Amino acid sequence: MKKNHKSLQRYRGIALLLVVLSFFLIECAGQEEKTPEPPIAIAIHGGAGTMRKENMTAEQEEAYRSKLTEALTLGHEILKNGGSSLDAVEQVIILLEDSPLFNAGKGAVFTNAGTVELDASIMEGKTLQAGAVAAVKHVKNPVSLARLVMEKSPHVMLAGEGAEAFAQEQGMEAVPNEYFHTPRRWEDLQREKSEEQQKNASPKSLLPGGKPGAVPQDLYGTVGVVALDKSGNLAAGTSTGGRTNKRWGRVGDSPIIGAGTYADNRTCAISATGHGEYFMRLVVAHRISALMAYRGLSVNEAAEQAIRELGELGGEGGVIALDKNGNIAMPFNTAGMYRGYVDREGEVWVGIYGE
Amino acid sequence: MKKNHKSLQRYRGIALLLVVLSFFLIECAGQEEKTPEPPIAIAIHGGAGTMRKENMTAEQEEAYRSKLTEALTLGHEILKNGGSSLDAVEQVIILLEDSPLFNAGKGAVFTNAGTVELDASIMEGKTLQAGAVAAVKHVKNPVSLARLVMEKSPHVMLAGEGAEAFAQEQGMEAVPNEYFHTPRRWEDLQREKSEEQQKNASPKSLLPGGKPGAVPQDLYGTVGVVALDKSGNLAAGTSTGGRTNKRWGRVGDSPIIGAGTYADNRTCAISATGHGEYFMRLVVAHRISALMAYRGLSVNEAAEQAIRELGELGGEGGVIALDKNGNIAMPFNTAGMYRGYVDREGEVWVGIYGE
Repeated sequence: MKKNHKSLQRYRGIALLLVVLSFFLIECAGQEEKTPEPPIAIAIHGGAGTMRKENMTAEQEEAYRSKLTEALTLGHEILKNGGSSLDAVEQVIILLEDSPLFNAGKGAVFTNAGTVELDASIMEGKTLQAGAVAAVKHVKNPVSLARLVMEKSPHVMLAGEGAEAFAQEQGMEAVPNEYFHTPRRWEDLQREKSEEQQKNASPKSLLPGGKPGAVPQDLYGTVGVVALDKSGNLAAGTSTGGRTNKRWGRVGDSPIIGAGTYADNRTCAISATGHGEYFMRLVVAHRISALMAYRGLSVNEAAEQAIRELGELGGEGGVIALDKNGNIAMPFNTAGMYRGYVDREGEVWVGIYGE
Repeated sequence: MKKNHKSLQRYRGIALLLVVLSFFLIECAGQEEKTPEPPIAIAIHGGAGTMRKENMTAEQEEAYRSKLTEALTLGHEILKNGGSSLDAVEQVIILLEDSPLFNAGKGAVFTNAGTVELDASIMEGKTLQAGAVAAVKHVKNPVSLARLVMEKSPHVMLAGEGAEAFAQEQGMEAVPNEYFHTPRRWEDLQREKSEEQQKNASPKSLLPGGKPGAVPQDLYGTVGVVALDKSGNLAAGTSTGGRTNKRWGRVGDSPIIGAGTYADNRTCAISATGHGEYFMRLVVAHRISALMAYRGLSVNEAAEQAIRELGELGGEGGVIALDKNGNIAMPFNTAGMYRGYVDREGEVWVGIYGE
């Protein structure tokens, strides 16, 4: 019995050792699975502006948070399944363009002439290929046309009716301009026009760098996406209806490669939103890339510095920026910015105010 | 007598001393006049391309050299008389736009549709204010409209019919599109179209970064000016008809702030010419400014590096760049570039080939 008891104890000891060893092996295998996975990440914005918690109903806030989360989930799924950052950027922007919540595609703001004119751009960081369209009126998803310009034309930027002709040649379906019209944006235009009349403000008083308050303080629309895929490729895209009451064929920063959009695998991918004229004069998106490339700043430092310089010049807005390691920066100098990300740990975060 | 002789010698000594002193004072006064004069300088280009000495008649060469010299003289006079660099840039570009020799204003190339569509931009380095127009058809001097956009509108860039409407509101006289038409450019279009047909080349084969030879090897037109005035202010401007046979409302780098034109008093003023799509993807003008600001390169090193990167991506063209001390760089990777400068010593130089 004594002998039996002893051997039983020995068996128990061996069994315990085996269990511990098994757990150790499972843990190792788990870590082996985790380690080689390259990082993926995505960040989006839906415009910067003066949105404050006290001016928004709980329903409005929930609508934005839910749409931003839906967009992030879609983009992250594409990246997780091995899709390209370019596909993620395009598909997520399409989803935002199709939502009336944002100033891009359906729900875009009206021009002074009561029409909707859309701008968009897209860029991939591996090849520095880029495509952009300005002032299109009949293209349901301008970001997809920007991608066609990049992939199917010898050009980077097409504007106006010429861009529409190219869209038709490429087999894109045209939509009537009325497709984009929403009552909310029509009211925005009427309010803007009557305020302009009341102020008796000539367009001159809206000069960039002019008096504070001369610039309409409503939302700077625009949607944008930056993404990093499993192959380590960055991409960026931006889409907008521009400014309410815009006239004279005004082109903002969104379709300008270097101003509103830039992507370079060696540095980062950027999409901007805000008072476009300032972003153009500072070439903000390329400035962030250059600060990383030439001054060795991190994506966060570079984006912060660009927004600081923007503020010093009198400009308002924000950017989303993503580097090749999946680091995300989203600085802005307005009260709020619709924004969100799924970082390389898979954490989903969505925000509206300066929180 | 001896005493007299002695006093005569003394007088002679004093006289000699006075003469030497006078010369010294004159010399000092001269130097005083020279020293505080701040440097002024101007550089221009009239396009980069495959121009070779063997393909040009002596008369053609003389016509270009003489017009470039006339333009430089005009610009330098403005700067010498205390005019602003912005005035010098605008007036010199007007002179080049009015000449049928260059692909800007009168003498611009034809689009695929047989019309002329013009792009221009201007920027001042002190304020980073900028103005640009794209695809205008009835504005005799697009550079002047770009300046009006900068000074009299809240915007940086206007395109198409909207830009024309703004021009009219500003009291600019409209010209019929035929004003710009020249037989030489019409022949260019016909040749280009028939070559395209022969190659049965779809536009897809002209993709940036596509096969060599697919890109038309004719002159990349465009005129540009950079200037430094007595107040130490830099300015840059660019004007072009774009590419022969262009279609779909293509916008090149010339009206894009950061790509074809940039000016910042802290770094330099730049105007580019060449295959615009590559300049847009690399944001060449702002890249040069950023290389100076963030990497501490000289204007020459920065411009050389940007043109090297352009070549590595497959792009062709050149830039003129001028820093706040009057240093001038004019690198290009094409066979030739119409170009010239008046440097801070007042030396006038004009060149065409890679000399």
